[in-house]
Amino acid sequence: MTGGAETCLVGMKIVDLTQFEAGPSCTEALAWMGAEVVKVENPKSGDPGRTAGGKPGQDAFYFLQYNANKKSVAIDLKDPRGVDLVKDMAKRADVFCENFAPGAIERLGLGPDVIRALNPGIIYCQTKGFGEGSPFERNLAFDMIAQAAGGLMSITGEEDGPPCKPGATIGDTGTGMLMAISVLGAYVRKLRTGQGEHLQLAMQDSILHFIRNAFTFMERTGQAAPRAGSKTVGGGNPPIGVYPTAGGGPNDYVYIYTSRANPEHWTRLLKVMGREDLLGDPNYATPDARTERRAEVDAIVSAWTRQHDKHEAMRLVGSATIPAGPVLDTLELANDKTFEARGIRQTMQHPTIGAYTMSGWPVRYSGRTLPVTAAPLLGQHSDEVLAAWLGLDADALGRLRAAAVIGG
Amino acid sequence: MTGGAETCLVGMKIVDLTQFEAGPSCTEALAWMGAEVVKVENPKSGDPGRTAGGKPGQDAFYFLQYNANKKSVAIDLKDPRGVDLVKDMAKRADVFCENFAPGAIERLGLGPDVIRALNPGIIYCQTKGFGEGSPFERNLAFDMIAQAAGGLMSITGEEDGPPCKPGATIGDTGTGMLMAISVLGAYVRKLRTGQGEHLQLAMQDSILHFIRNAFTFMERTGQAAPRAGSKTVGGGNPPIGVYPTAGGGPNDYVYIYTSRANPEHWTRLLKVMGREDLLGDPNYATPDARTERRAEVDAIVSAWTRQHDKHEAMRLVGSATIPAGPVLDTLELANDKTFEARGIRQTMQHPTIGAYTMSGWPVRYSGRTLPVTAAPLLGQHSDEVLAAWLGLDADALGRLRAAAVIGG
Repeated sequence: MTGGAETCLVGMKIVDLTQFEAGPSCTEALAWMGAEVVKVENPKSGDPGRTAGGKPGQDAFYFLQYNANKKSVAIDLKDPRGVDLVKDMAKRADVFCENFAPGAIERLGLGPDVIRALNPGIIYCQTKGFGEGSPFERNLAFDMIAQAAGGLMSITGEEDGPPCKPGATIGDTGTGMLMAISVLGAYVRKLRTGQGEHLQLAMQDSILHFIRNAFTFMERTGQAAPRAGSKTVGGGNPPIGVYPTAGGGPNDYVYIYTSRANPEHWTRLLKVMGREDLLGDPNYATPDARTERRAEVDAIVSAWTRQHDKHEAMRLVGSATIPAGPVLDTLELANDKTFEARGIRQTMQHPTIGAYTMSGWPVRYSGRTLPVTAAPLLGQHSDEVLAAWLGLDADALGRLRAAAVIGG
Repeated sequence: MTGGAETCLVGMKIVDLTQFEAGPSCTEALAWMGAEVVKVENPKSGDPGRTAGGKPGQDAFYFLQYNANKKSVAIDLKDPRGVDLVKDMAKRADVFCENFAPGAIERLGLGPDVIRALNPGIIYCQTKGFGEGSPFERNLAFDMIAQAAGGLMSITGEEDGPPCKPGATIGDTGTGMLMAISVLGAYVRKLRTGQGEHLQLAMQDSILHFIRNAFTFMERTGQAAPRAGSKTVGGGNPPIGVYPTAGGGPNDYVYIYTSRANPEHWTRLLKVMGREDLLGDPNYATPDARTERRAEVDAIVSAWTRQHDKHEAMRLVGSATIPAGPVLDTLELANDKTFEARGIRQTMQHPTIGAYTMSGWPVRYSGRTLPVTAAPLLGQHSDEVLAAWLGLDADALGRLRAAAVIGG
């Protein structure tokens, strides 16, 4: 049997007790490739991500982004019968994921010892803010706390300004991606040996993985890596960074990168700018000379970039094979229909929101991206999943619903 | 047969023609879990990452970070016999990875059509700066170009300042992680069906995956998501962000986050700060009131945080179960030996550099992280791999070496 890439993980069954983003981004990646991901949510309000910024009575866009292609089962975990349902599901699952606050899953009676005793072959995954053995192991964390305590804010922002938070959610989605890789590795072994695993990942520790270049700067210099504005850690090779373009808006900038390893980047740039008069000028001829006169170099480049809009500047610099890119904002990206033509952004139909366009999994498999289907309504698949997984019939489901053990 | 987590991917064979970071970070993650990753490098200087910031004659720390647990085979791809060796390796491999500039792998005669015809079951992976069909598809890209053109810089930096580059290499390592997930998904299907795959991922497209929260802001407001300093997109619920602490150094800040969904964060914080006088004060009682008086709120919090060092501030705020974290820099993180005690940072022995401590894969498997072994010297495993994979004997290897087809 062969199949499309959306069948890569067909047969992989995941009990998903995750919420917000770090956990859901992990299981969503697996769902896109065909795993059956069943969110277990409380029947009253579900994953708190459902109400993170949404309109009353409607799932938030935030929730839609991180829960595509999943199923939802609404189960009351304060009722022992609900806990038993989840245990029965876990007996039939390959993977169990959670990212509650420290200690919460154990208090629910669904901790790793319990679940792994019921199903020794399960891959039990826990994502927390800080790792066991960390001085902060009992502390709460969200994305921004992990970015602060994981070193990333210390290297983001203007050189003489305070620490900034990167706009990307590396503490959340970054962590989710590392966990997804680990789940899949353990799953490959499980297919071969039947062996289960207990996976634990802390958001703070994940951040360290994404800032390894900054650690090498620290190791070379003995100094903490500083902030560098739009430049690379340590300042990089001038010219480097964002340069203002015509328009003057907050994102009217073009990024230009000239490599220390390729001296032609600078000479090509002089030609693009019509500054052949500076070719060979010893004031700017070498990386060291340009570093010494960084402000002058930046002024020369800015004087030229200001005469062009960012797209034109990008076109001129890029076609001279100098690495360059316009600073694009979220609206410009959404309005660039080539993302939809290429399947990177896709429009799905949500039962209450209607057409919604979002970024899907950005990888192409034999030229196509994976199809995005709408995030589930709360409890949308309660009956379907409990019937298929546990063999519950309509009567049994009716009794559970009447007793408010399940919802949806 | 069962085994430790470093055997998860045992038997998975990868021909690795990647360089710098986006490609190598992907194959390194797979190597940590037990895949046999063989870097194919040019015999003269190898992966250009080897000389990115290193001392003369020594591999750069940068290279060590992204090539742990791999093997290296030095093969001259300008010699047709070298190209044939790689083709023979590809016939026996599960995965083939490359991230050269657009068109380069095809010019080498090792493009996807060639390799997939030789081995239809192979998973052929390509990472580029921009996707096929993008207006920039022929352009060069590095991490910072992807961060600019992928929207991330537009949402990073001070509210009234220019775009900043996050210190994390999301364009590189972030892309590598998404590719690793995709490789593993395709590998699971290959184990089941024998089917191969052609995976393509653009760094610009990857960035979109990591900034989905900013897209939801844009969708809700119709406006491009702006920069927000250390706050979350849209400004968040005051108090939020970095607050200056005693010491006054560039990273003497504590991050404090109070949730709109949990009004107790604010009242608990007032108690921690000894500002019970403000409990119930209508000027600050609600999220809307605090948003209107954001500057006042920030001043109240800063007046308190300045009296404590960041660790003490974190302890006091965190133990009141308000999300908080100190802004830690790379040196402070390296000096915190709990990372080594927990196996997050590990010391390996490199043959020419000696002891080197780096961040390994941050996930714990049954309480242990995966062991880190040193990145290979250039061509260190030429004989071993060519003998084991292709059955070449000492005579054959000697002839190839004498003809400078292989090195090491």
